[in-house]
Amino acid sequence: MTVPGAQMAAEIIEQPAAWRRLLTEGREQFDSVARRIAEFDPSLVLFVARGTSDHAALYGKYLTEIIAHLPGGLVSPSTMTAYGARPALDRVLMIGVSQSGGSPDLVQSLDVARGQGALTLAITNQPGSPLATAAELEIDVLAGPERAVAATKSYTAQLLALYLIVDRLRGGAGSAAEALPDAAEQLLAGDAAVRDLAKRYRFVSRLVTTARGYSYATAREAALKLMETSYLGAQAFSGADLLHGPLAMIDSQVPVLTVVADGVGGEAMQQVLPRLAEVGADVFCVGSPAAVAAADAGVALPPGVGEELSPLLEIIPFQQLALHLAVARGGDPDAPRGLKKLTETL
Amino acid sequence: MTVPGAQMAAEIIEQPAAWRRLLTEGREQFDSVARRIAEFDPSLVLFVARGTSDHAALYGKYLTEIIAHLPGGLVSPSTMTAYGARPALDRVLMIGVSQSGGSPDLVQSLDVARGQGALTLAITNQPGSPLATAAELEIDVLAGPERAVAATKSYTAQLLALYLIVDRLRGGAGSAAEALPDAAEQLLAGDAAVRDLAKRYRFVSRLVTTARGYSYATAREAALKLMETSYLGAQAFSGADLLHGPLAMIDSQVPVLTVVADGVGGEAMQQVLPRLAEVGADVFCVGSPAAVAAADAGVALPPGVGEELSPLLEIIPFQQLALHLAVARGGDPDAPRGLKKLTETL
Repeated sequence: MTVPGAQMAAEIIEQPAAWRRLLTEGREQFDSVARRIAEFDPSLVLFVARGTSDHAALYGKYLTEIIAHLPGGLVSPSTMTAYGARPALDRVLMIGVSQSGGSPDLVQSLDVARGQGALTLAITNQPGSPLATAAELEIDVLAGPERAVAATKSYTAQLLALYLIVDRLRGGAGSAAEALPDAAEQLLAGDAAVRDLAKRYRFVSRLVTTARGYSYATAREAALKLMETSYLGAQAFSGADLLHGPLAMIDSQVPVLTVVADGVGGEAMQQVLPRLAEVGADVFCVGSPAAVAAADAGVALPPGVGEELSPLLEIIPFQQLALHLAVARGGDPDAPRGLKKLTETL
Repeated sequence: MTVPGAQMAAEIIEQPAAWRRLLTEGREQFDSVARRIAEFDPSLVLFVARGTSDHAALYGKYLTEIIAHLPGGLVSPSTMTAYGARPALDRVLMIGVSQSGGSPDLVQSLDVARGQGALTLAITNQPGSPLATAAELEIDVLAGPERAVAATKSYTAQLLALYLIVDRLRGGAGSAAEALPDAAEQLLAGDAAVRDLAKRYRFVSRLVTTARGYSYATAREAALKLMETSYLGAQAFSGADLLHGPLAMIDSQVPVLTVVADGVGGEAMQQVLPRLAEVGADVFCVGSPAAVAAADAGVALPPGVGEELSPLLEIIPFQQLALHLAVARGGDPDAPRGLKKLTETL
C-alpha cells in the first residue's frame, strides 16, 4: 500500500543531494554552454516553458536582466506554434526549460527559433529528450528521475542551472551556490513545524501568494504547488500588481502567503505589507527572521544565502506546506486528480 | 444618492463612441508614430504596464509577434527600478501602457529605457501625463475621463491603439477596425441578458477564466475585473498552462469562464474543453455561436470581426458580468474596497 505523498516527500528531501550533484559532476556543462553564449553575443534572452518550469524561466528572466544586463522575455509558445509567427531572432538566445523535455509545443518553439537564427538551449532533466535534441546546446539538471506529478527537485535544479549559466557569463564560478545544500538541510529539518502550520489552512478554499523581484518566481510556484496538490484556489501576484486591483478581493478570510527575504525584493514588499494589514489579511511569511516575526505565521530562512539564490530555499517550505496540506485534506499529491506527469500541449 | 455601478455602466456604454473618436480624430497620431518606429527599425518590442493596462500590453505582445514578426516581451518594472538593471536596449522599442500615465515605476522604466537607447512610446488616456512626457512618442487613446476604479473604456481604447500601430506598421490603414463600434453596440444591447446570467454566479467564491492566443488577454482582464469589483477569487490561465497543473483544482463547484472565438486561439481551445467536461466543470463561454451553444451558458459574439480584433468585443460581456455580479453581491464597482483609481507603485 502506498502512503499518500510519499513520493513527493522523498523528492523534496532529495534536493540538497541533487544540487550537490549539479555543482560537482554537472559542473563542466556550464563552461562550454557559457562559452558558446558569449561567442554568440545575444542581445535578448527569451524563455519558453510551461507550468513549474515557467516559474524557473521567470527566475531566469530576472537573472538575465539584472546580472547579464540583457532584456529577457517569456515566449507565448502559441504565437510560433498555433499562429505560425516567424519573428526575426538573429541575436536571440532562446532557452527552453522543461523537466521531461517532451511537450510538443516547446519542442516546436525551439525548432522554429533555431530556424529563425536563434541560439537555442534546452535545460531539462532528461538527456536525449526531444527538447534537448531540438536545441543546439543542452544542460542536464541531473535531478534524477522525478515520479511525483508535483515537480519539486527538478524545479530547484532548474533554478540552480539558470543561476550557474548566468553567473558563468559574468565570470563567476558559482561559488555562492555552495552554501545552498546545507541551508536546505536546515529547512528540511523543519518539516514537522510546517506540518503543524498546515493545520491553519486546512479549510481554506482560496488564498493569495505574493512577492517581488527574484522571489516573485517563488510566489508563482508556491501557488501552483498548492493548486495542483491541495485543490484550492491559489493566486500569485507580484506585490506591485496586487495593489493595482486584486487587493479588493482580499479580506480576513483570504490568507496571504508572502515571501519577504533580505534584499531588494523583500524591501519592495514593505510597500505591500501595510496594505495587507489594513484589509485585515492573515499573513504567512517565508523570509528573514524579522519579516517572519512580524507575520501571523511563517518559516524563517537560514542565513548565508544572498538574494540571487534565495528562491532555491524559499520554495522548500511551500513544497512542504503543499504536501502536508494535501494529505490533511485527503488528497494524494503524488497523483493529483486530472493530471499526468507529462502534459502534452500543442 | 448614487446608484452602485452607475459610473462603470456609463463607461462601458461609451466604448463604441470612444473607438469611433480614435478612428477619426485620433487617426493622424498613428502615421507619425508608425513612421518613427519603422525608421528606428526595432529588433524587439518590450511593454511595461500594470493591472488592466498589462493585459492590453499582453495583447500588444501577440500583435507584435504574429503580425510585426518581432519578438515581444513584458518587462518586470522592478528589474530596472528596484534592482537598477541597465540592459542594453539599442534596438528596442519600449511601449509604456497606462490609463493615467502616472505610476512612478512605469515612468522610471521608460526613463531608464530611453537612457539605454530604446525608442520609447507612451500609450495613455492622459496627454501631458508624466509617462507621456518621459517618452519620445505618445499616443492619446482619447477615451475621455474615466472615473470608475474598474477600467473599461480605457482598456479597449488601448487595445485599439495597439492594433492601429501594428496594422500601420504592416501597411494597413486600420480598415478592419471600422466594423468594431457597430458590433459593440450589439453586445451592449444584450446587457439585460448578462444581468440575468450573473444570477448563476451570485454565490461563487472562486472561478477560473481561460483562453488561448489573442483572447488570453481577455481571460486575464476578465479575471481582474471580477476580482476588483466582485471580491471573488478569479484566476486566469492560458488554456495550455491550465492543463499543466491548475486543472487539478477545478471541479463542478468552480465555474470556468472561457473565450472561444473563431480563429486559431479558439481552435486551440478544442484541446482544453474536453478536459473541462471530464472534470465536470460548469463552462461559461464568450465566443462563436457554436461554442456558446456547446457551453452551459454564454454570450455569442456578433459576426464580421476577425480574430485580431476580437478581444475588443470579447471583454464587453465580462465587463457587464463584473458590473452586475458586483451589484448583486452588494458591492459598488465604481469604488471597490481597498482601491484607488491611480495606484502608485515604486
